[in-house]
Amino acid sequence: MTENPLKYIMNPASIATVGAGNNPLKMGTLHALSILKDGYKGKFLPVHPREKTVLGHSAYRSIEDLPEVPDLGLIIVPAPEVPGIVESFAVKGTRGCIIVSAGFRETGDEGTSFEKQLMGVSARYGIKFIGPNCMGIINSSISLNTTVMRYAMGTGGLGFASQSGTYITQNLPYLHRRGIRFSKAISVGNSTTIDITDALEYLGNDPETKSIALYVEGVSDTGRFLDVARRITALKPVVAQFVGGSEAGARSGMSHTGALGAPDFLYDGLFRQAGIIRLHSIEELLDHGWVLATQPRLKGKRIGVLTNSGGPGSSMANTCNQGGLEIPEFSEALKRNIASIIPPHAACSNPVDITFNMDIGLLTKTIPEMVMDSGEADGIVLHGAMKSGFIVSVYPHIRELLGGMSMEEINSQFVFDMAGSAALPWKYEIPLVISSFMDSDDDCIAFYREQNVPVFDSPEKAARAMLSLHGYLNVTRRHDSGHPEMPERVPGAVDLISDAVAKGMGNLDEYQSKRLLALYGIPVTREQCIYGMDDIDSVLQTVGFPAAVKACSHEIAHKTGKGLIRLNINSIETAREAVRDIRRAAGSDVALLVSEMVKGERELSAGILRHQGFGPAVMFGIGGIFTEALRDMVFRRAPLRESEAREMLFDIRSQGLLREFRGMPGVDIDTLAVMIQTLSFLPLLHPEILEIDINPIIIAGTKPVAADALVVLSSGVPG
Amino acid sequence: MTENPLKYIMNPASIATVGAGNNPLKMGTLHALSILKDGYKGKFLPVHPREKTVLGHSAYRSIEDLPEVPDLGLIIVPAPEVPGIVESFAVKGTRGCIIVSAGFRETGDEGTSFEKQLMGVSARYGIKFIGPNCMGIINSSISLNTTVMRYAMGTGGLGFASQSGTYITQNLPYLHRRGIRFSKAISVGNSTTIDITDALEYLGNDPETKSIALYVEGVSDTGRFLDVARRITALKPVVAQFVGGSEAGARSGMSHTGALGAPDFLYDGLFRQAGIIRLHSIEELLDHGWVLATQPRLKGKRIGVLTNSGGPGSSMANTCNQGGLEIPEFSEALKRNIASIIPPHAACSNPVDITFNMDIGLLTKTIPEMVMDSGEADGIVLHGAMKSGFIVSVYPHIRELLGGMSMEEINSQFVFDMAGSAALPWKYEIPLVISSFMDSDDDCIAFYREQNVPVFDSPEKAARAMLSLHGYLNVTRRHDSGHPEMPERVPGAVDLISDAVAKGMGNLDEYQSKRLLALYGIPVTREQCIYGMDDIDSVLQTVGFPAAVKACSHEIAHKTGKGLIRLNINSIETAREAVRDIRRAAGSDVALLVSEMVKGERELSAGILRHQGFGPAVMFGIGGIFTEALRDMVFRRAPLRESEAREMLFDIRSQGLLREFRGMPGVDIDTLAVMIQTLSFLPLLHPEILEIDINPIIIAGTKPVAADALVVLSSGVPG
Repeated sequence: MTENPLKYIMNPASIATVGAGNNPLKMGTLHALSILKDGYKGKFLPVHPREKTVLGHSAYRSIEDLPEVPDLGLIIVPAPEVPGIVESFAVKGTRGCIIVSAGFRETGDEGTSFEKQLMGVSARYGIKFIGPNCMGIINSSISLNTTVMRYAMGTGGLGFASQSGTYITQNLPYLHRRGIRFSKAISVGNSTTIDITDALEYLGNDPETKSIALYVEGVSDTGRFLDVARRITALKPVVAQFVGGSEAGARSGMSHTGALGAPDFLYDGLFRQAGIIRLHSIEELLDHGWVLATQPRLKGKRIGVLTNSGGPGSSMANTCNQGGLEIPEFSEALKRNIASIIPPHAACSNPVDITFNMDIGLLTKTIPEMVMDSGEADGIVLHGAMKSGFIVSVYPHIRELLGGMSMEEINSQFVFDMAGSAALPWKYEIPLVISSFMDSDDDCIAFYREQNVPVFDSPEKAARAMLSLHGYLNVTRRHDSGHPEMPERVPGAVDLISDAVAKGMGNLDEYQSKRLLALYGIPVTREQCIYGMDDIDSVLQTVGFPAAVKACSHEIAHKTGKGLIRLNINSIETAREAVRDIRRAAGSDVALLVSEMVKGERELSAGILRHQGFGPAVMFGIGGIFTEALRDMVFRRAPLRESEAREMLFDIRSQGLLREFRGMPGVDIDTLAVMIQTLSFLPLLHPEILEIDINPIIIAGTKPVAADALVVLSSGVPG
Repeated sequence: MTENPLKYIMNPASIATVGAGNNPLKMGTLHALSILKDGYKGKFLPVHPREKTVLGHSAYRSIEDLPEVPDLGLIIVPAPEVPGIVESFAVKGTRGCIIVSAGFRETGDEGTSFEKQLMGVSARYGIKFIGPNCMGIINSSISLNTTVMRYAMGTGGLGFASQSGTYITQNLPYLHRRGIRFSKAISVGNSTTIDITDALEYLGNDPETKSIALYVEGVSDTGRFLDVARRITALKPVVAQFVGGSEAGARSGMSHTGALGAPDFLYDGLFRQAGIIRLHSIEELLDHGWVLATQPRLKGKRIGVLTNSGGPGSSMANTCNQGGLEIPEFSEALKRNIASIIPPHAACSNPVDITFNMDIGLLTKTIPEMVMDSGEADGIVLHGAMKSGFIVSVYPHIRELLGGMSMEEINSQFVFDMAGSAALPWKYEIPLVISSFMDSDDDCIAFYREQNVPVFDSPEKAARAMLSLHGYLNVTRRHDSGHPEMPERVPGAVDLISDAVAKGMGNLDEYQSKRLLALYGIPVTREQCIYGMDDIDSVLQTVGFPAAVKACSHEIAHKTGKGLIRLNINSIETAREAVRDIRRAAGSDVALLVSEMVKGERELSAGILRHQGFGPAVMFGIGGIFTEALRDMVFRRAPLRESEAREMLFDIRSQGLLREFRGMPGVDIDTLAVMIQTLSFLPLLHPEILEIDINPIIIAGTKPVAADALVVLSSGVPG
């Protein structure tokens, strides 16, 4: 493994800027101000062609003139000048840069040529850089912020890597209001020499980062991403948002950072495979990332729901339950304990609804502790924490009745063990997530946020964050069969493909396609091809009845409805008739495939596809004539680990079909998993393979058998 | 139609309170303070057994002592006292009350008896009340707020009806921060005499209410709800959250307001049928409700995405696109116009990304107006509006450079046509939804919110709100065939059922079940029953080949795998053999059903079910042996309008099967819709029908035929 270049870029002892001056309306200046004002203790070395000082620091005419080799160069100048500047840094001895400047491949041909120059400089000198077209980094542990807005929140456990600079800049006030704090944040921009996978790997190895959030428009090397992510998610939770999966999202990503999207279902599969929890908004990405960074892990699916108000309680319970968590009724003993301290008409089971109550300690400390101590819940969601915010809200009403007492005086009379409440998750190693309609201007909410107890502004958000904790529990419980051993290429398969390519065939015919699969051990129908005057009688002795006879040619893809296929043949006479009929329809020289008819009501399908920028992917799903109508299929990046193939099988909606089903036995999962895994190797063993479509895979008794298959080659267009 | 009792409860000229005193820690006092302090101009008449004055107003010893008949009684005393007090109000002449007190049916037997007493009082005197166990109401047009927290936001267009009092009380500070304003809000509590349907109807007729949001734990009369909702959604958008659809949600709702939930899929269907847009969190309910209340309607699906930052732009485009909206590339002319005023490397198509720019008027006024004026977008989502919030955020960095200029001074230099921007939606009748990472402490955000332009705190929220506008566009485009004419009960069907009930049969046998359907015109397989020595030969002449022979008894539900069924019979000999075999297995006196074998690869299913508290429901979905595994089915409340039956057919995931499909012709939708509609009448015509299961419905050519059916009766348990 090569050294991750972020290691030195994220921890520079000195930073030289090119493009920062003294005009506060210029981006370069704003970047430099963040470095200077947010607490960074390293050296600041501005390079400026005219100014004597920049922001109070002596400026240098050129990079050559710098008195020392800066650890990091920060570049904010027009695109055409950037390659030369990076080269100067490289010559000086600097190993890493941040290139903020935009105007590269995201803008078209001219920009692409500048980006190519940058790649050339990197290749010649070994210098690496974040960007171009990025916002830089935040490293809270050394108070370094190179973005244009202020980061004054201190250290935290959330690591963030983003293909959008906005999410580590423009949204800093948003984070501040919510008390969410970064360990490190990295805006990767165009990802020319350092991409989101490098950032993920860096954050994975960073001990201060407890969880990782990714904003993704498109990953350039999904195979490497998968390898890195798989390793990290086993140890540390990763959440991700992907927005490049629709036509408009992909187009937008392309013009934003030149990122290449891919259909949503491919990334959905990639994230599942990698153990990454997928989320669908920046809010959830940050919220859930923050819960995963701060809370103890969820160790089971029993959730306690505590509230001072019925609606939020019902909704939290419902949201958890719909998402696969349990809201068990509490034991009689626990209910008795809770009932003894709440009003008689309040609900003491689960949800516990204490109803409106001025003793906020009851809701936030006494009852959660009872529940945690009982061992009857693995996690707690709680709605209704508030203190000074409530006073502020009702003060105009009650002021006179209280003889003009100040808000502060009233608030000071409501005392409870806030510190004890905030400490509960770690005392019991049980996660706690809070919902409140009050915000950080409420002293109680602000305190929780400071103390790393996440507070969200509505009940469903607290419940949904618990679902991500549960999602990560499931990730850690996955069995990993380890790196797969790919078989050697089978000479017969190599021949089949190279013959077809040599002949300019766009695809193998059905017989060849299944032959190819069979050569790798994938079970296919018993069958044989007959040509010209070959005798069908002897073939039928091997194949047996009932049989099917089909025209077999790489030029014929769809056989139904053209008189090119005869099924359920039960006698030699019918078979001979079929041969005659098909030859009449397709020509006397057409090859005929004689196959056994596999019996089974369950039909599945599997396949291989490639999408530009994504690499080879495997599909598994429901097959037969309803494949397109049902669209019950899942995808993964190839090649598959055996454990991933198994997991994939049970990811389809109709996975009930695979188990014992209406008198049919359970499907032989071992065989099916190996079959899908083997299939996943084929596009890597044979790069000429563009697509494979196996449909149907019929379950004969318990055994899967490929009954029809098509292998499409990159040498042409399928016939 | 009877008069809606909310008409007088919502607009009282005088309010008498029972349970309000001078102790600000008591709920009763807080309720009264809201009436007195939030601007209500009507009379306040406190009833108190001991105090001379309550909150500065003369108090009366008893309701009898009141100097006039109050329009409204507000009651906050322990449950046992409530029935007597309501009776006193009724005797006095008051027509409506709000009962805040809890401790009724939601708490068990004793509470239920109090609630029954209340119902008795209402029945005797005609008095109606909101609650018990509620928070009361807000009517912003007369500044009336009976809840415990302050409402000081003025009038707005969102009507809210809630089975949780919290959502019109505890969340008022939350609403305030977001600038969301009620026209009217109603907390219905236990819904004893006034339920959520009454509230919906009232809001539907209220001219100040532009859109309606519902928080639902369970509707008591879904039939009436549907009738009312259908009428309203044709004119005014309605959004709803339902939380009683999971085991935990239903349990929680029951202990909260005694509401009876039902499986989620039933409410999903009910809302679809009613034209209600379903949402899944209180935040979305309020956000989308607010957008629907304030913005012009969306008239098409083309959305313009405008941003100053790539990530949010990509995500908004992707969220819209995934949700069924289009993000069309702009015309060359429009692109040229936009390109002429933004930096060269910024994106001028759709999304338009102007990148970081201090001229906020460009993003919020100039470009949106260009796009609206072009006619190329039906709606606009915009990310990045901000002004003073940005200054506050960067001020600590730039203060010195600007010679200590104050924040206000700096802010005052950024001038743009905010009013013109906020007026755009109405100038062009095109909806505008904004996303910003700044909050209401930003002057620009606060201004938009005041001006009824919704601003959300992240890009996906703006995009998702646009999806609800699109959802409502689809609702208004629905064809409504009007109230269905139910057929008369068919005497033969009455006889079939009453015979079965008289014999204590839990269900009709297969033959009787299909006879019942056929009597109402539902197409079934051609078939006949034979008993004892009846001759199969003549029956087969009617039925034809291929045929099926099955044991037919109401005591035999599952025939497969027991030797009780023989399919694909092609000769009289085989048929006779089948008769012998089945009688050997099931007894010589068993009746046998001889049916035609309908040929068709597409198998659907339909049915009737009842769920306590929901009423009769119709199911339609994929049928055959995979029904359970695929679970591709949708539900509606019975009876169906013909247009609803049609809509239902195309609501299944696999609706592609209904159209021309792999060489099969399109299904005869007219016949299928009538079939499903007719089915939906049966539980209403015959209340003894508990369930109907028709599976499969085989599509023979284009025609649907019920090939198997089971009618379960309420007289017993299915055999």
